[in-house]
Formats: sequence, structure tokens, C-alpha cells
Amino acid sequence: MQIAFVVYPGMTALDAIGPYELLRSMPQSEVRFVAAKTGPVVTDSGVLALGASHSFDDTPSPDIVLVPGGSNGTVAAMNDEALVSWLRAVHPTTTWTTSVCSGALILAAAGLLAGVPATTHWVCQEILGSMGAIPQPDKRIVRSGKIATAAGVSAGIDLALWLIGEIHGPDQAKRAQVEIEYDPQPPYDAGHPSKVTPELLEEVRAKLAADAQKPPVTSASW
Amino acid sequence: MQIAFVVYPGMTALDAIGPYELLRSMPQSEVRFVAAKTGPVVTDSGVLALGASHSFDDTPSPDIVLVPGGSNGTVAAMNDEALVSWLRAVHPTTTWTTSVCSGALILAAAGLLAGVPATTHWVCQEILGSMGAIPQPDKRIVRSGKIATAAGVSAGIDLALWLIGEIHGPDQAKRAQVEIEYDPQPPYDAGHPSKVTPELLEEVRAKLAADAQKPPVTSASW
Repeated sequence: MQIAFVVYPGMTALDAIGPYELLRSMPQSEVRFVAAKTGPVVTDSGVLALGASHSFDDTPSPDIVLVPGGSNGTVAAMNDEALVSWLRAVHPTTTWTTSVCSGALILAAAGLLAGVPATTHWVCQEILGSMGAIPQPDKRIVRSGKIATAAGVSAGIDLALWLIGEIHGPDQAKRAQVEIEYDPQPPYDAGHPSKVTPELLEEVRAKLAADAQKPPVTSASW
Repeated sequence: MQIAFVVYPGMTALDAIGPYELLRSMPQSEVRFVAAKTGPVVTDSGVLALGASHSFDDTPSPDIVLVPGGSNGTVAAMNDEALVSWLRAVHPTTTWTTSVCSGALILAAAGLLAGVPATTHWVCQEILGSMGAIPQPDKRIVRSGKIATAAGVSAGIDLALWLIGEIHGPDQAKRAQVEIEYDPQPPYDAGHPSKVTPELLEEVRAKLAADAQKPPVTSASW
């Protein structure tokens, strides 16, 4: 089972790395990080680079595709013809096509979410709807046929755990869960927009809007 | 506030990337990924590379240090004189010295945990004790003075959230939490070794022991 994580400049690392750390423990699985060409891809911090291990051309038939979001890279990725046309080309033969956070907007840009119930980061729900998907703002994971979308960033961890259960059953999911000791004990209960004050939510919304304006860094410093 | 994430071959990516995705949203913070030299560092999957953005030499006085664990890289890191001597050199002037998962063994190898209460991945608690630390196997986060250690892999996310609260107060932690929508809803409840059957735990222990035998990949394929 080949699992392809799409990487692009300005992506959010945890969107991909959370699911990767679970999915890679599945039996007979091969993980790869894919982009137009191999080599470093700088994420939305402008500092952290992840390496693309394989090109789109070398990855014509992945079983699972995961598209991460990115605070300042999503729009460019939506307009990246190589990325979007690869998604369109491989989707018909995937077992699962998935996204985390604003990665759903990239699936939508590829035309894969027309009329499809889906979720995304809370800040992107409205635009997801405007692109023809049916937003499910209160859902952390939304499955629609073989498409599965997750809410913001850390929701990808829950998505991956759920996906392992779908593919290999609960025992394999539990093995993966205890391997990464995913027994969450957040010291605050502020992970959903409904759980924070409107003022705090507006502050975060303003920060995210400002972050989105920064041009993605397109080459590593080394 | 300079935050240095140590990277080394055979490390577990999520140990660092989980905390990074929270800590980097702190005001006036600068994140960097440090190793003996800059460039790609291949993680314990043998496929994913993270880029070291800065060298140890260029990072003489970080405010926060985080040392990740690694399924097949920990032992080599414990014996990596450049890494361990850098930890020893910077620790006296850090505000916080932290680890996730088997990263605690690397702090111990640097001599920083003698007689110090600490935690690590459930599979490493015994060896942590044999190195002179005081294991706290039932704790997800252990703080001892300015040293803070987290349990396995995903526990680093809780550690980082807690740390933001310590540094900037609860509101800043909540901003970071809602930004990454960290409202965990794992579909299974098997994240702690006490929550799975002994048979399943032994299977995971055997897998981790086999993983630990694989030599770390030391250079990226590209």
C-alpha cells in the first residue's frame, strides 16, 4: 500500500507529519513525500524544510493520497497546475483520497469536492462552501465515499487513526495509537472555536490572515 | 526567544514537529532546527528528511531546547559527541531544556538527568532509570526545575501547550491550541499502555525492538 503525502512551499508540517507517523506503521505500507521534483520544500514557518522523496511523475498510482494545508501556501498550491493535475490523474485509482486542514481547498481546486460533504480548518469553512463542497464545520473527520477530510492541523492525527481502523481493523489502529502514545491530555480545553471567547478567536483569525499574506519561502537556506 | 529543535538521523519526526507547530506561534519567537551541520537529516522511516536550518556552532545560546526521540536513532545520538557536548554547553543558559519520547535518554546521556524526575516513551522507562533519572511512567509531562520531559511521541504536543502557558499564560496557550484546532477526538482509547491488552502491547514492543535494530539512514536520496 503506497501512501503519498503531497508537499508544497508554505504547507503546514504537522498536517502531514501527524498522519504520517501513524500510517507508516501499517503492515506492507510504503510512505513517500511527493512534489513536482524531489528535494527540500520549505514549510509555512519559512524555516523548516521537509524533503520530497519522490516526484509526481514517479508516483502515478498511490493507494492513499494525503493533501496537507498551509497557512501561506494553500492558494499557490490551488493554482499549481502540476500539483492539481496530478491529484486529478491519481484520484480515480486511489483507495483513499484525503486532506487535512486547508488541504481540502486544494482537493476542491482539483474538482474533487463538488457536492461532497467535507471539512477543513474552522477559518476556511466558508471558502470551502464557496468552492462547491458541503462544509461540515462541526465535524473533525468527514468521510464521503473514498474521500476523507479532516479539520485543522492536529485533526489529521485523528483522521489517520480512524483510517487505519477502516483499512486494518481496530487492533491495528490500537497498535499504532499506543506506539505513538496518543493518549491526549491537553492542559487547556480550547481546541475548537466554540471553546474560546469571540475576542480570542478574532485575534487568531487576524494572525492567520496576516500569516496568509506572507509569500511562501521557495528554497531552503542550505 | 530562540527555540532550538535538535535533529539527528533516525529521529521520530512527530516528536519535534508536534511541539514546533505550537511553540512557533509564540510572540517574538524564532524557531530553528539544529545539527552538527545544516542540510537534510533522514528520520526513522528512512524516507522523510527534515532540514537542519542551523548548526550547533551557530546556536550557542538557545532559550528553549527540545530533543526528540527516535526509534532507531536514539542510541547513535546518545553517543554523538557533537550533539551531547552541545547539550551540555547550552543547558546552563537555557530557560527550558526539554525532551519528547526517547529524547530523555539523550538528555540523560548528556548528564542532565542525574537524580531528576523525568518521563519518556513507555518502552524506555526502565533504561531511563538505569541512567540515573527517576522515571515517572504514569506522567505524560514531568517538570523538574527548568527541565521538562514528555512521554512518547504525541505527548510533545501536550508538553508544548503546557510550556506556552508557563511562558505566556493561559490565553496564549489557548490561541495556539485553537490555531492548530487541537481538540483531540481519537476514535480509539488505546494511547496508554494500561489501555491495551498485554498481547497487543507485546506485539508493539517487539515491533519497536525490531525497528531499533535498523541502522539509521544517514543521507537523503536526493
